[in-house]
Amino acid sequence: MSFDGFEEIASTLIQANHVKQALQAVNKQQKMYKTLLSQRQLPKEGFSDQQIESLLSFFASMDTNNYENHIGIGEREGRVFSKLVEKRHFYLSHGIGRSGELTSNQPKAAGSSIILQLCNYLVNHAIQLAGCKNVKKSIVVPMCTGMTLALCLRSLANSLEQPNKKYVIWPRIDQQSVLKSIDTAGFTPIVIENVLNEDGSIEANLQSIESKIQQVGAENILCVLSTTSCFAPRVPDDVFEIGKICFKYGIGQVVNNAYGVQSKIIMERINKTIASSKSTITCFVQSTDKNFMVPVGGAVVSSGSDITFIDKVSKIYAGRASMTPILDLFITLLSMGKDGWEKLLAEREVLFQHFVSEIESKLTNTQSKFSLIRGSLQRNQISFALSIDLPKEEALKVGVSLFYRNCTGPRVVLKGSSKTVLPHLSFVGYGSHTDSYPHHYITLACAIGIEKEEIESFLTLLNKV
Amino acid sequence: MSFDGFEEIASTLIQANHVKQALQAVNKQQKMYKTLLSQRQLPKEGFSDQQIESLLSFFASMDTNNYENHIGIGEREGRVFSKLVEKRHFYLSHGIGRSGELTSNQPKAAGSSIILQLCNYLVNHAIQLAGCKNVKKSIVVPMCTGMTLALCLRSLANSLEQPNKKYVIWPRIDQQSVLKSIDTAGFTPIVIENVLNEDGSIEANLQSIESKIQQVGAENILCVLSTTSCFAPRVPDDVFEIGKICFKYGIGQVVNNAYGVQSKIIMERINKTIASSKSTITCFVQSTDKNFMVPVGGAVVSSGSDITFIDKVSKIYAGRASMTPILDLFITLLSMGKDGWEKLLAEREVLFQHFVSEIESKLTNTQSKFSLIRGSLQRNQISFALSIDLPKEEALKVGVSLFYRNCTGPRVVLKGSSKTVLPHLSFVGYGSHTDSYPHHYITLACAIGIEKEEIESFLTLLNKV
Amino acid sequence: MSFDGFEEIASTLIQANHVKQALQAVNKQQKMYKTLLSQRQLPKEGFSDQQIESLLSFFASMDTNNYENHIGIGEREGRVFSKLVEKRHFYLSHGIGRSGELTSNQPKAAGSSIILQLCNYLVNHAIQLAGCKNVKKSIVVPMCTGMTLALCLRSLANSLEQPNKKYVIWPRIDQQSVLKSIDTAGFTPIVIENVLNEDGSIEANLQSIESKIQQVGAENILCVLSTTSCFAPRVPDDVFEIGKICFKYGIGQVVNNAYGVQSKIIMERINKTIASSKSTITCFVQSTDKNFMVPVGGAVVSSGSDITFIDKVSKIYAGRASMTPILDLFITLLSMGKDGWEKLLAEREVLFQHFVSEIESKLTNTQSKFSLIRGSLQRNQISFALSIDLPKEEALKVGVSLFYRNCTGPRVVLKGSSKTVLPHLSFVGYGSHTDSYPHHYITLACAIGIEKEEIESFLTLLNKV
Amino acid sequence: MSFDGFEEIASTLIQANHVKQALQAVNKQQKMYKTLLSQRQLPKEGFSDQQIESLLSFFASMDTNNYENHIGIGEREGRVFSKLVEKRHFYLSHGIGRSGELTSNQPKAAGSSIILQLCNYLVNHAIQLAGCKNVKKSIVVPMCTGMTLALCLRSLANSLEQPNKKYVIWPRIDQQSVLKSIDTAGFTPIVIENVLNEDGSIEANLQSIESKIQQVGAENILCVLSTTSCFAPRVPDDVFEIGKICFKYGIGQVVNNAYGVQSKIIMERINKTIASSKSTITCFVQSTDKNFMVPVGGAVVSSGSDITFIDKVSKIYAGRASMTPILDLFITLLSMGKDGWEKLLAEREVLFQHFVSEIESKLTNTQSKFSLIRGSLQRNQISFALSIDLPKEEALKVGVSLFYRNCTGPRVVLKGSSKTVLPHLSFVGYGSHTDSYPHHYITLACAIGIEKEEIESFLTLLNKV
Repeated sequence: MSFDGFEEIASTLIQANHVKQALQAVNKQQKMYKTLLSQRQLPKEGFSDQQIESLLSFFASMDTNNYENHIGIGEREGRVFSKLVEKRHFYLSHGIGRSGELTSNQPKAAGSSIILQLCNYLVNHAIQLAGCKNVKKSIVVPMCTGMTLALCLRSLANSLEQPNKKYVIWPRIDQQSVLKSIDTAGFTPIVIENVLNEDGSIEANLQSIESKIQQVGAENILCVLSTTSCFAPRVPDDVFEIGKICFKYGIGQVVNNAYGVQSKIIMERINKTIASSKSTITCFVQSTDKNFMVPVGGAVVSSGSDITFIDKVSKIYAGRASMTPILDLFITLLSMGKDGWEKLLAEREVLFQHFVSEIESKLTNTQSKFSLIRGSLQRNQISFALSIDLPKEEALKVGVSLFYRNCTGPRVVLKGSSKTVLPHLSFVGYGSHTDSYPHHYITLACAIGIEKEEIESFLTLLNKV
Repeated sequence: MSFDGFEEIASTLIQANHVKQALQAVNKQQKMYKTLLSQRQLPKEGFSDQQIESLLSFFASMDTNNYENHIGIGEREGRVFSKLVEKRHFYLSHGIGRSGELTSNQPKAAGSSIILQLCNYLVNHAIQLAGCKNVKKSIVVPMCTGMTLALCLRSLANSLEQPNKKYVIWPRIDQQSVLKSIDTAGFTPIVIENVLNEDGSIEANLQSIESKIQQVGAENILCVLSTTSCFAPRVPDDVFEIGKICFKYGIGQVVNNAYGVQSKIIMERINKTIASSKSTITCFVQSTDKNFMVPVGGAVVSSGSDITFIDKVSKIYAGRASMTPILDLFITLLSMGKDGWEKLLAEREVLFQHFVSEIESKLTNTQSKFSLIRGSLQRNQISFALSIDLPKEEALKVGVSLFYRNCTGPRVVLKGSSKTVLPHLSFVGYGSHTDSYPHHYITLACAIGIEKEEIESFLTLLNKV
Repeated sequence: MSFDGFEEIASTLIQANHVKQALQAVNKQQKMYKTLLSQRQLPKEGFSDQQIESLLSFFASMDTNNYENHIGIGEREGRVFSKLVEKRHFYLSHGIGRSGELTSNQPKAAGSSIILQLCNYLVNHAIQLAGCKNVKKSIVVPMCTGMTLALCLRSLANSLEQPNKKYVIWPRIDQQSVLKSIDTAGFTPIVIENVLNEDGSIEANLQSIESKIQQVGAENILCVLSTTSCFAPRVPDDVFEIGKICFKYGIGQVVNNAYGVQSKIIMERINKTIASSKSTITCFVQSTDKNFMVPVGGAVVSSGSDITFIDKVSKIYAGRASMTPILDLFITLLSMGKDGWEKLLAEREVLFQHFVSEIESKLTNTQSKFSLIRGSLQRNQISFALSIDLPKEEALKVGVSLFYRNCTGPRVVLKGSSKTVLPHLSFVGYGSHTDSYPHHYITLACAIGIEKEEIESFLTLLNKV
Repeated sequence: MSFDGFEEIASTLIQANHVKQALQAVNKQQKMYKTLLSQRQLPKEGFSDQQIESLLSFFASMDTNNYENHIGIGEREGRVFSKLVEKRHFYLSHGIGRSGELTSNQPKAAGSSIILQLCNYLVNHAIQLAGCKNVKKSIVVPMCTGMTLALCLRSLANSLEQPNKKYVIWPRIDQQSVLKSIDTAGFTPIVIENVLNEDGSIEANLQSIESKIQQVGAENILCVLSTTSCFAPRVPDDVFEIGKICFKYGIGQVVNNAYGVQSKIIMERINKTIASSKSTITCFVQSTDKNFMVPVGGAVVSSGSDITFIDKVSKIYAGRASMTPILDLFITLLSMGKDGWEKLLAEREVLFQHFVSEIESKLTNTQSKFSLIRGSLQRNQISFALSIDLPKEEALKVGVSLFYRNCTGPRVVLKGSSKTVLPHLSFVGYGSHTDSYPHHYITLACAIGIEKEEIESFLTLLNKV
């Protein structure tokens, strides 16, 4: 309560020394907020829910829809019919952005605009803490990773002003949304088939990338769209080496880092690239839900070198956007704090190793039909795969069986599936990132927020099915 | 955000002119709060939910359990296990009062303590607006009306320091909790049978009251416990005339005004009494839920003359109390505002008349088994009764039938029921406030918050059953 | 509680007849839900918040993240760190869609998937009720109108499989996000300048559209992107007449109906077009926030003829999406009910007329510098404009003055502004939809949810400034 | 969703196998609820917030105020004006009890009534788990411990029907609310001064109790009101030995077990007493907030032998009561589960020992002005005391200093204070439970929910002040 005379008035309601002590505490809370607004970093310790709600409450009172004497005439937005809806949005209703610029501040919603700016700073800090110290700027986009990648591709095209650049080089990764993002942005993907190594790992073919660029002509190619986070036995693309090729031919590299923030080796590889003078990353894009434990709905675009590129991406979003993914992330990062975030990251790394060693020891003990594919373990530390030594029908049953026993995360990948993802674009061996993988296998992620008990439950279940 | 430099810092996040405008709005909101704290009256227009939550959020940050660096060692309260529970209490967990004094401020909860003080002022103002301009002080007690009456009786006894005063004169009203309150406080009720008038109304027998006082001896009598709000055909006790008797014999009058705040004639009668030099009311007690549209749980003790009596009541509550009834009422009164509260009161008066005239016109049209008991209409403007011209079994069925068709308010009162309420205290004709009422009847209240549509639905239903 | 034996068990806790009666009520509630799921229309009367929360609670228990014995291993989404965030999403965290198909049901979130399907049905029904009886299918897209238009353009291109179609014909409307949407989708806009009528109204030039199609060649043109809802004095595009041209040349018509749902004449015009065999609308797109009183964030794509087109749009969204705009709309439509929605629509129409007549009478009374531009009134019944008879500087001050007096809706449009919206695309007279409008003017919308008091406040304020 | 045909209808909205799987999960959740309702014990593992809200939502739909077609006519309660208030009560508004009987089920609120019954069972189970296996019945009373004790005293008097019994024997404990409870119930306390042992501990004087009974006459004495939980160096009353005296003279023993549930030795002592045939406890009363980590507001009355006594207490509450303390406790116990509750209890015991040993080691290291009073440690395992070797003024400063450094739990007790608590009842040495304790001291509780970090912070702070 910042009005002059609060202390005096309150002291006529309750004892003056209690008012004084309480105001000391209030001031301490204000200092926390001040530090947040001026330093724009994750607070060391997470805020309590009360502190978060109090802050949001203040910001809400800065938005016009909450003005005491607001005259709503002429407004087309900001009115909320349902109190349930109003309350779930903490009385923030104007969304973010203005005239199709995501990070512009919305004149009718100063509070929401501040939250947006702060959230962008906080998530950039979180990415630095995850191992990518050289990231310069990040923004949260309230769309999924794929749509955000589309926005990045289109921004890159606009910034280059070279209408011929209609191809995107894409080392194969069997996940539909990225291909769709290329298509949605109006470009044509050039698929680069992967290398299948003897150790069972699958990786991008760097020679193919380079020779394809030479063949198609760099002047026709917008960028390489590489992928860092992926299901084993595929390994993350080596963005540093790919970046060197991109640098050499003067094309961009857009990195689909969907759930890579949680992996130190991935983040350090990205960091090395953006710090380099001979390798390039235009931007890297990550999911909010897969890295920061928020509901599905947002993505983060980050850049280490050319921060004006981030502004270009912001300007290409065609309208005013939902604030929810930003608000979820803002609340969550404040609630975690620096300590909480780093603890979650560290625990995940430890549990990944624990999980792998548990798998190894448990599989040895039983004459198992499953065996760990070791080839990807060094390079892919988010996901691992188990080959399944069973006929197709029975391998399929393993997956179904897990799903119906409420274990919905693991995926069974069968040899020899094929699928048409885009018109004119079909894949053999779809799901396994390569035409003919030698095994059926089961692949799973060991993602942030995983708990030790889940690992035990899974192993028990796997032995059963 | 009251910290110095907020405007400057925020202006580096978003445009300075938007910060400036938002701060103007924030300041207006602060002024509303300042007016509330200094004037301590219902705001003219109700606050929005956002404004209410923002205010509560501030007060919560004044309570020790929300201090940033609170060391909870040694505390036995204030810790809340469940986030669901924490949130429903707006992070206020310390309750109200201290060392068994309800209105004392709680050192660990300055914010809660301010809410309590404000709420007491607001409810006092609401009672003034309802027609009792001379009320001087009111407090919300987080117990039902009956328990609060017990507290008042005991306070009165303590303040008199006359251990002989063990009787409470009680004009009969067939409702159990008040009798229990007399018993709970350790007193013995003396029942005064009512007068049954020819017009069908039932009223307290003033002559009996006076002669009983003479008979038992005023030195043995604590007070008359009179009742204002009641189900027709009983009419409210004439607290002014009873007060004159009490004044004459030097005994107290405690008024059970359970749902009487919503009736102008009742409140004006109380007002006339407390303003008088020859009539007396020690205190009058009303339910929060029956008058202010909050969930069940609280009562308000008010006094017009001796405000120290209110303090005595406060001091007799043996512990620290739940804050919920106070918080519910605080939120509700802020949300209604003066305009909203007066509108609800006015609408109820209009709908009562409308209801009665609808009943009259509809009953004339049908050769009805129900007929309006007119005798109580002038004096009881909250409730009315319809006599039922049916045998007992069928009259009973009317009530059951209404209940099972989801019309749970009206009560059917049958002739000749009897009931034992306290050990040694039984009643004939229980429910009808008199030993032998000539009819079965149905009685119902037209309470605050009633809507026109409900009246139509009821009349339709009544015609059916 | 659907378990067998609930009634028996509950009847050992409380009286059996109370259990029985309560279960009758529960069953009635279940029937409401059943009707909702089977009829898929707005309920006649709105649901209460309790009924809505109870329904959401049930759906939440169908999502895997709430399974009692869920083994989260391998999951990368669905975990929520903050309880504040979890609760604001009603425990739904998986978003909507699957593998980049918006309306596909998400195997991990059966409850969320049902909400999505229902919401699409409900919003389609709401659009029918608004005057467009022939609409066949609608889906809510959790992006702004502009991004959704981009999705529609790209879907249209994919479905045509004609890579040459790179132009979009666009009758000028001075609002940035639509132009951006064309660009984001990778197309090139062809701007059609408007006609300025003598009565001050501005409208699309149908002859220019047709001659431009002939000039550029229909084989190169994807569609006309027309606009129905706009700020006066521009009038809505005549989608029926434009649709005839599109039909004639075999190109699409995508309609930007941003806030047009609330206007009966617009909706009936769209209806006439989609019902016609000689005019065409590919799809029409509307904002959720501008029509349905929810926070900013979503859009609805509707189609009257080719419902497979809606499926194509759904399939082009590249990922899994935020559920928030769907959930907000679902709650709101249930809360409004059919009666509430129709009442809001009717009230807006009445208030528009009231507003205009108030303007007329008040402006006559004062020797005003403002005068109503009558030309657009017949065709644009959402917005109207007042010419300002003041020098540029002072006209500008009017706008600033309104804004700083918390009247943030009206816009002052000055003659002779110019602006570059896209690289290579600049406009003269930007804001007024035409190169040289003869007046400065003020334009404002009379949008759904407007209240009578706001009109008075505005008129008072306008007289001041 | 229990309606017939849900599976079929839902399977037309989303894939049938996903519906089937979700319904399996829903059924598992229903089974959890069934187990809860039939076994009436803490679930082994705590429920998730989603599961709790879902259950509350179901119960809310059983209350008449949420009936779809409820006709509210005649109702005086249940209407809630503010949506904020409605929501914080989970749409339950009717409170608990009926006609002044707390545990009677409220016909208008079947859902609330079930919650009340379940909560009473759950809290009884929690008390069993805490070490008092022989407890037979418990009820939650929505008033503070003191008011609840008053209710128990009055119930005891009524059940004895001996109007002469006007004295309550009370071993001195310097805490105001219990004395007030005796007074509020209309009885006169007889204070029994404590014994000060050489080891610094203070305990009730059993000889004095017996001789006072003989002196006053058992026929005039209602009961002994003993106290188990207290601040060191006072030790808990030996309820077993006191119970033997009570048994011998045929008087009651009401135990103020305010925060004793968290102490195993206290609970086992109570258990031994209620299991005995030669010792007696009429009832024992505990605070909800001090034992179960809920906001301030409720108490639990428990009995091990005569469970009809509990019913008598229930019947003396004069009205319908606030449900909040019950709802808070219900949510919290479900959220804890048996495992969570036992873990909290165990952790507290461990931390008490840890705290004491930390104190010992830290105090030895510094030439401290504080020294641990060891005498009470064996018998009082909730609280301990440190003597302060400083002059009065400085000792006082220690307390003030702690308070203002946000350490609000510890209390400094000075020698030689005196206080009048009730009219005619004053104490010398007030605060220290005895007339002349040899030291100033600081006393603090180690209560449930305490965390290890708090202990360190406190020790650091203590060294500073």
